[in-house]
Amino acid sequence: MKNRIITISREFGSGGRTIGKQTAEKLEIPCYDAELIHKMAVESGFSEDYVKESGEEAPGGFLTNAFTTRAFGPTNGDLLWEIQYKIITELAEKSSCVIVGRCADYILRDKADCLNVFIHANKKFRAKRLVDVYGERDISPEQRLRDKDKRREAYHRFYTGMKWGYAENYHVTLDSGVLGIEKCVNLITQLY
Amino acid sequence: MKNRIITISREFGSGGRTIGKQTAEKLEIPCYDAELIHKMAVESGFSEDYVKESGEEAPGGFLTNAFTTRAFGPTNGDLLWEIQYKIITELAEKSSCVIVGRCADYILRDKADCLNVFIHANKKFRAKRLVDVYGERDISPEQRLRDKDKRREAYHRFYTGMKWGYAENYHVTLDSGVLGIEKCVNLITQLY
Repeated sequence: MKNRIITISREFGSGGRTIGKQTAEKLEIPCYDAELIHKMAVESGFSEDYVKESGEEAPGGFLTNAFTTRAFGPTNGDLLWEIQYKIITELAEKSSCVIVGRCADYILRDKADCLNVFIHANKKFRAKRLVDVYGERDISPEQRLRDKDKRREAYHRFYTGMKWGYAENYHVTLDSGVLGIEKCVNLITQLY
Repeated sequence: MKNRIITISREFGSGGRTIGKQTAEKLEIPCYDAELIHKMAVESGFSEDYVKESGEEAPGGFLTNAFTTRAFGPTNGDLLWEIQYKIITELAEKSSCVIVGRCADYILRDKADCLNVFIHANKKFRAKRLVDVYGERDISPEQRLRDKDKRREAYHRFYTGMKWGYAENYHVTLDSGVLGIEKCVNLITQLY
């Protein structure tokens, strides 16, 4: 496989998706994020909203019932993981691209020439960005962050066995809160 | 304080010290590493070799006897930590510079305008570099890495309470094994 893939893992609210998109535009290669969700929905028969929620986060109560529910066979999450695995592998075979989230770094680890990036920022920056980009909700942005962080980490650990947010899992990690979105885009473009 | 400081934390054998030195040369600012050891030795009265070993690593058996030995007052390690804290703070006040290791990121966290960098690489790259740079020893490079990694992590956790190697502790982390020393130097220079 001669394509070169940029995988972007990111903390919720860190601007990782925006960075992925702008990097892809600069490099004139496709960026898969929303499109990935659409493909998974088509293939699985689940709704796009369901895929979006379940494709990279553990559902509530995940840790307590993950095993008991498996007594009846694979969970919906397991089925989605299989589809996600297949789609991401196919995309990487098709052309160079940027893939945001969805454990693409893990899925492609021995298969493709990847630059694995992790974007993070402190809670204050992410809480502000959350409200700016997604608007206000009933629960506070801090609470939403805590919830998302916990679920993303649990999902990641369960399906990849890797420690979320550890530098050694990535070729480069960047603090978007301190460096800013534009600098992150420039750096990744340059490393590619 | 208007000086700008680059702190470089690094896994043993990752080339972090070389990256620090070359970055400082490019930016025409001082790089403190060996010099820091010399200053600490003068100030503490300990030998340079002793300072080098104790200044950022837990001694053997650290975790089991760290508290018992403190029943008799601060350990040598604690005294060195105080001196290290003072010297690093003074250096950062004096001029812009690069400081390699010695928890400078933690010591300067609320005091200086820092770019905090972490350099890491996989064990194979580091084992090879260890032999290339420091030569062969009686124990295998893999064993030396395991030992150093463990002691550096324990030291770091004990004095800073931070999780060693976690992306969120740094503005940028770089895999020197995959990216190469030169690219790391260029990136850090550019971010500064």
